[in-house]
Amino acid sequence: MKLYEAVRSSASFRVRIALNLKSLPYESVVLDLRKGAHRSPDYARVNPAQAVPALVDGSHTLAQSMAILEYLDETHPRPPLLPAAPLERARVRGISQLISCDIHPLDNLRVLFRLEKELHLDQSAIDAWYHHWVHEGFRALEQILAEPATGEFCHGDAPTMADCCLVPQVVNAVRFKVDLGSYPRIVHIHEACMRIEAFGKAHPDRQ
Amino acid sequence: MKLYEAVRSSASFRVRIALNLKSLPYESVVLDLRKGAHRSPDYARVNPAQAVPALVDGSHTLAQSMAILEYLDETHPRPPLLPAAPLERARVRGISQLISCDIHPLDNLRVLFRLEKELHLDQSAIDAWYHHWVHEGFRALEQILAEPATGEFCHGDAPTMADCCLVPQVVNAVRFKVDLGSYPRIVHIHEACMRIEAFGKAHPDRQ
Repeated sequence: MKLYEAVRSSASFRVRIALNLKSLPYESVVLDLRKGAHRSPDYARVNPAQAVPALVDGSHTLAQSMAILEYLDETHPRPPLLPAAPLERARVRGISQLISCDIHPLDNLRVLFRLEKELHLDQSAIDAWYHHWVHEGFRALEQILAEPATGEFCHGDAPTMADCCLVPQVVNAVRFKVDLGSYPRIVHIHEACMRIEAFGKAHPDRQ
Repeated sequence: MKLYEAVRSSASFRVRIALNLKSLPYESVVLDLRKGAHRSPDYARVNPAQAVPALVDGSHTLAQSMAILEYLDETHPRPPLLPAAPLERARVRGISQLISCDIHPLDNLRVLFRLEKELHLDQSAIDAWYHHWVHEGFRALEQILAEPATGEFCHGDAPTMADCCLVPQVVNAVRFKVDLGSYPRIVHIHEACMRIEAFGKAHPDRQ
């Protein structure tokens, strides 16, 4: 498999973790988003949305990180990224989407660029925007992680799709200096994940 | 089942369509987001993220519209919201997430409120923001819908999860006066969906 990705892209980071958890080797093609590499005509032929990641498996190209995680789980079921029971799967997907739909889309590079270049916000206003959406999401997530179904990880005692989403969001939030003091459960789970090599070797600093 | 929802919330609209497609009766609890009904302590106990929709099934409450669609499909498989083959499922989920992760989160009510109340943008700047993200997403989607796997609907000749996402986004875009002239395939699929009663009776104007 070939992964078109960016080093600091959270969505790419999610897929790297999943590929590592499943011990799937992949060839990496790194795009420099700050230089607009994803906007090239060549890459538009790979992914019309001109976003990373995109995963090439044989003659097929898949886009959207969460769709890729589901695909990897369906085609390489061990170890699973989702539990077996529908209610548990819904909980794991719900946590994943709280991050991938409610936090990350508001704080990714293209949005921060637009705040700066089109709305001419200064850095402190951009930081306030970034922090606001992380805190909105993490406040809810911290409560959800108080449910009994939480264990050493977001759901039970093995990593799931939810942890593949949580870790990149935490790493990104730390980079933007978000104070995580109110989120001990999130921090604890992040630390548990980072003790696993599949997470560690997916970290941006190790690309 | 009981659905906590808002009439014009696209994410609620997705779930209404799915429930109708599967002929599942539900009790509706409508929250007025403009009056902050989702911010009440009572609703925070239903959904810590204080967002709609939330679906109560027996003693369990599910949040996040896309997790709810997957849950409904797993627990009530007929008619399916996803095809059977992993590559096709990935395509349908990819289209769904292009809308639910790349367009909708940037243009929903809480974001438009923040642009107005915190960033003090005027209406024309808010409209420009809204239109920008719809066009970014729809440009890519229109290309994806040129693939052979597209039929009368986003994927083949029966509605899927992708159509449950497409229709609310089109209805929302029309309300915000986005010119859809460059997206004939999107418009065609939207019209095909709206000829189906499951979509029609989920429309905000019929709540």
